[in-house]
Amino acid sequence: MTNYSIKDIAEIAGVSVATVSRVINDNGRFSEETRKKVLKVIEETGYKMNYSAKNLRMNKSFTIGILVPDISNYFFSDVVQRLEEILFAKGYSTIICNTSRSSEKELAYLRILEGKGVDGLIVISGAEAFEFASSNAEKKIPYICIDREPKKKEDTIFISSNHYQGAFESTEELIHEGCQHPVIAMHNQKSTSAKERLKGFKDALKKNSIPFDQKQHLLAVDIEQSDFEENLLAFLKKNPSTDGIFSINDLIALELMRSLKKNQIAVPHKIKLIGFDDTAFGKYTTPSLSSVKQNADLIANYAVESLLELINKKGELGRQIIVPVSLVLRESSIS
Amino acid sequence: MTNYSIKDIAEIAGVSVATVSRVINDNGRFSEETRKKVLKVIEETGYKMNYSAKNLRMNKSFTIGILVPDISNYFFSDVVQRLEEILFAKGYSTIICNTSRSSEKELAYLRILEGKGVDGLIVISGAEAFEFASSNAEKKIPYICIDREPKKKEDTIFISSNHYQGAFESTEELIHEGCQHPVIAMHNQKSTSAKERLKGFKDALKKNSIPFDQKQHLLAVDIEQSDFEENLLAFLKKNPSTDGIFSINDLIALELMRSLKKNQIAVPHKIKLIGFDDTAFGKYTTPSLSSVKQNADLIANYAVESLLELINKKGELGRQIIVPVSLVLRESSIS
Repeated sequence: MTNYSIKDIAEIAGVSVATVSRVINDNGRFSEETRKKVLKVIEETGYKMNYSAKNLRMNKSFTIGILVPDISNYFFSDVVQRLEEILFAKGYSTIICNTSRSSEKELAYLRILEGKGVDGLIVISGAEAFEFASSNAEKKIPYICIDREPKKKEDTIFISSNHYQGAFESTEELIHEGCQHPVIAMHNQKSTSAKERLKGFKDALKKNSIPFDQKQHLLAVDIEQSDFEENLLAFLKKNPSTDGIFSINDLIALELMRSLKKNQIAVPHKIKLIGFDDTAFGKYTTPSLSSVKQNADLIANYAVESLLELINKKGELGRQIIVPVSLVLRESSIS
Repeated sequence: MTNYSIKDIAEIAGVSVATVSRVINDNGRFSEETRKKVLKVIEETGYKMNYSAKNLRMNKSFTIGILVPDISNYFFSDVVQRLEEILFAKGYSTIICNTSRSSEKELAYLRILEGKGVDGLIVISGAEAFEFASSNAEKKIPYICIDREPKKKEDTIFISSNHYQGAFESTEELIHEGCQHPVIAMHNQKSTSAKERLKGFKDALKKNSIPFDQKQHLLAVDIEQSDFEENLLAFLKKNPSTDGIFSINDLIALELMRSLKKNQIAVPHKIKLIGFDDTAFGKYTTPSLSSVKQNADLIANYAVESLLELINKKGELGRQIIVPVSLVLRESSIS
């Protein structure tokens, strides 16, 4: 008897390897017709189903876990939505876990995803460097980090937008539009991407011979706090020559725009403004909001491609993939 | 020897039943201290661990599945975020599956969630009536529908916002503000909630002696299409007396506001506008957008409470819980 592989079975039945695996394990989606067809081929070829079924069951669930810190964040939910679509088209199902930026939750969900037997993991953003200590040393689960620095670079592939470029170009754009005292507005929580954006801002200042001074050039904000506007006005009082703000995200930019307007400080006439993320809403404000657009499609594509390579033991670990961003100019930053 | 139950063990150890189960199954989160404490009580009481562990493993995973049609939708992601927080605080983990409004995906994810052994299911929105045929007749998984009509009402508890009330009050508000020809703007996809909103709009017209005529009062829109603005202008040309629009969601309302502005049709002076969902962005536009606010907190609370009741075989099936909405008035609808 020829020794048929699962690949042969799939080829003869005219379905994917994933489908054969699902039929054998009775796990996931397939039509009754497909089931019959696959089982018929298995019978005809004498494929050693039981052993392979066990093997497959141990090794492949065709499920990928995603850890996301805040599913209500515009950019994160966009990336997750695309990841799911690409994975599904490739025969993988996605289970999403929302960690609410809590390390306790993250640990809990890591163990749960491990327990559910996911084949791989995609970790999105977060403040601390990511470490995944699999509780089962024999079966290490491959993982990919998006916008989140891995603790052990050699264990993973790190994908991120070029946050540095986005911040650098935004700041240069403000300067080219005539701003002599550009400011970066950011929250205190320093994620990997926030750090890169700050670096880009500082370097653009340096390139234009503006010495960075934290007190003059960094506006620390928290839009959740009621004293947001008060803080902004206090900062502007201390730094009356502020004429441009690069905001670390659109939500902060929109809140700044609203507060400035309310206090008769004209955008862009008195202060020019550029956000980050290019949320769906920036085009609806008056003035419309300039922003940095991340390429969620490309990020999701790279993430899936790299993870499937790692799962199939082909990918090169330790790599970093940096995806370019683009500046979308609207009314808020143009003279 | 007294026959101790898992509840007794939990009580003696001063932890929850869920924690005892997790320690026994070595599944999920607990500190080393908790583990020691629980195991000590088990030893002292002579609790029949093995049998119960098996039993628990068969019956309880302390995991809840959520099916959501579009995780990048503002309201859905808000509800999902809150569901996860409430469930986590009660000792349950949540796995989220995004169905991209596809019935094929929905079926696939239902089987996967079943395969992963979730204790219960929360189904959010969608166009068709929801039916869940468990593939294992012996172990029916309890489920809750949010904003999604169940096919078999007697199998579930149905929770939704009072979409009817939101639409009715918005339309009446437009009429009270002087609108004589209010219009409803909606997409073609008729979800459970969209149908209720249309009903509320029609009834408000009726109450104010305005006979509903589809051609005059219903503006069918699709913001994904490039002819959105063209359609709007064609509608206004045919119905020049249109002076108020109740929009089925904020995204459509914002797009309407932008197109109207672009064509020098003043909001609210010429046409008053009210949206639905009260997204974070409505307050940043000029004029700021009036909208209907759904109570995501209350919906999530009811959903978790009801689902845990069903899991513990206490809940009353066939019920419907309708959560009130509130009208947030801003500049776009006020004379």
